[in-house]
Amino acid sequence: MQQIAIGVDLGGTQVRAALVGEAGNLLAQASEPTDAMAGPERVLSQISHLVEGLLETDRSLQPLGVGVSTPGPVDTTTGIASDIPTLAGFDGFPLRAELQRRFDLPVSLENDGISAAIGEWRYGAGKGCDDLIYITVSTGIGGGIVSGGRVLRGRKGMAGHVGHMAIVLDGEACPCGSRGCFEAYASGTAFARRARLVAAGDAQTKLGKNGKPIDSRGVFLAGREGDALANRLIDEEAELLGRGITNLIHILSPEIVVIGGGLANEFDRLHPRIRDCISRTAMPAFRDVPVVHAGLGQNSGLIGAAALVFL
Amino acid sequence: MQQIAIGVDLGGTQVRAALVGEAGNLLAQASEPTDAMAGPERVLSQISHLVEGLLETDRSLQPLGVGVSTPGPVDTTTGIASDIPTLAGFDGFPLRAELQRRFDLPVSLENDGISAAIGEWRYGAGKGCDDLIYITVSTGIGGGIVSGGRVLRGRKGMAGHVGHMAIVLDGEACPCGSRGCFEAYASGTAFARRARLVAAGDAQTKLGKNGKPIDSRGVFLAGREGDALANRLIDEEAELLGRGITNLIHILSPEIVVIGGGLANEFDRLHPRIRDCISRTAMPAFRDVPVVHAGLGQNSGLIGAAALVFL
Repeated sequence: MQQIAIGVDLGGTQVRAALVGEAGNLLAQASEPTDAMAGPERVLSQISHLVEGLLETDRSLQPLGVGVSTPGPVDTTTGIASDIPTLAGFDGFPLRAELQRRFDLPVSLENDGISAAIGEWRYGAGKGCDDLIYITVSTGIGGGIVSGGRVLRGRKGMAGHVGHMAIVLDGEACPCGSRGCFEAYASGTAFARRARLVAAGDAQTKLGKNGKPIDSRGVFLAGREGDALANRLIDEEAELLGRGITNLIHILSPEIVVIGGGLANEFDRLHPRIRDCISRTAMPAFRDVPVVHAGLGQNSGLIGAAALVFL
Repeated sequence: MQQIAIGVDLGGTQVRAALVGEAGNLLAQASEPTDAMAGPERVLSQISHLVEGLLETDRSLQPLGVGVSTPGPVDTTTGIASDIPTLAGFDGFPLRAELQRRFDLPVSLENDGISAAIGEWRYGAGKGCDDLIYITVSTGIGGGIVSGGRVLRGRKGMAGHVGHMAIVLDGEACPCGSRGCFEAYASGTAFARRARLVAAGDAQTKLGKNGKPIDSRGVFLAGREGDALANRLIDEEAELLGRGITNLIHILSPEIVVIGGGLANEFDRLHPRIRDCISRTAMPAFRDVPVVHAGLGQNSGLIGAAALVFL
């Protein structure tokens, strides 16, 4: 009987579940849109339903446990959610206990940035490294840290909120309620917003001229077609990412920085400028830290959640 | 025979050595001004000389080893200094090997911020904590991190350079060569420079009016005497410290933040504003992290270096 882990990635948009082998291989997966406003009972039913459906596909598999990646910050030492901005009704909800009630297997709970870092560390681009930083650049910016061969969890298991490191004093408003955060400048959301702002005042650019709303993908597409403004915006984005990464390198001295999330689909376009920024702004001893693309693509968190079971 | 450790704090201004008991108690100490421009041979002689002098005072003690705190960044995995800005001639110098040659005892080498963090963790304000951040605010800003009950060293043992986290994009020039660093805004040096800048244009303040150059201490003194500009400058300093600390709290989720260094002599004056800043700018789940004064005062690094021997 093949021993497997069940990984669940609870996100604000999608609930995803997977059966994962000990080598981090995906055996089966399923997903559905998160019923984000329906409250925790409904969301937990979605999770049970997805997992049951997957297990029915192959009764010969022996699941050892369930690992759940959750949007945060969630206190993973108590398992109680205090407030999940992207999901309604989770304030004070005993998330781990309620998940445990639904499964006959041990349940582990982890903040999403940390889950993804674990995925990349055990099975992805950071495999074999003792010190790594994972950063996801998407709607927001999150992350997770491995240091000295151990997952850095901190008090309440809430370490790794790298998106809420302010890089501009009293800068742009951030969804977290503060100002100037890395997320408020370098997330996919911030990138698209900046593009919309400047495109309106630029006669040359094709951005926004075809009647379609400007999004991150459209900017990269325009950039590839030679649009000067789009390319300037992309270079600025890479520079902002480089600044945040340099900060983290100085604080944590990783062997490697792994970038995931939606914007990492354009890693090859962003990478040279990120590199250039680190070489320019980091202290000499830190300049050679490699920045690489997530090896598990959009599955870092899902596979990382399953990896909790094998850890 | 009492077993003891020898701690050495090699600084750009002073070389200090101490005999330290297993409870972190200072049994004897000695110091002299660092001959910072004379090159490594001379500086290492200063260390040997200080240590020999201390050991001669009580031949009944049994030293177990020598722990050395060094300004960085130094690669403590190889023990080779690449460049120490405050000391001449250390580029490429095999610091640990050369120290080892001078002692018949095991020698440990540690970056100064990490040493001080270890001192506060084992014997100071962070005793009993598994997750702490130590920050020294002095000429520059340095630090060290303990996470999950372990010292966070990172690649080359160079983690904890928290002073070189940029908080202002393209801001003030920093001695590290980059711009906008926490150190360039919130160090004692930056504080005094800001005071000199604004005092010149302020008719009401007493700062700089008595013919004496303005330094950090003078600003705090004027503040206590009711000088409005001095108090505004101090409040701004506390706010800047609070911003940097909030960033680190989000990244590392510590149980406690310990502040040392020269400016921490004014901890009681700075603390309420630092607290206020964290409560205002941190995400709700992180707002209650305590910020405390270093328990070992100016000896955090010296005692932390000795603690390396007992670890």
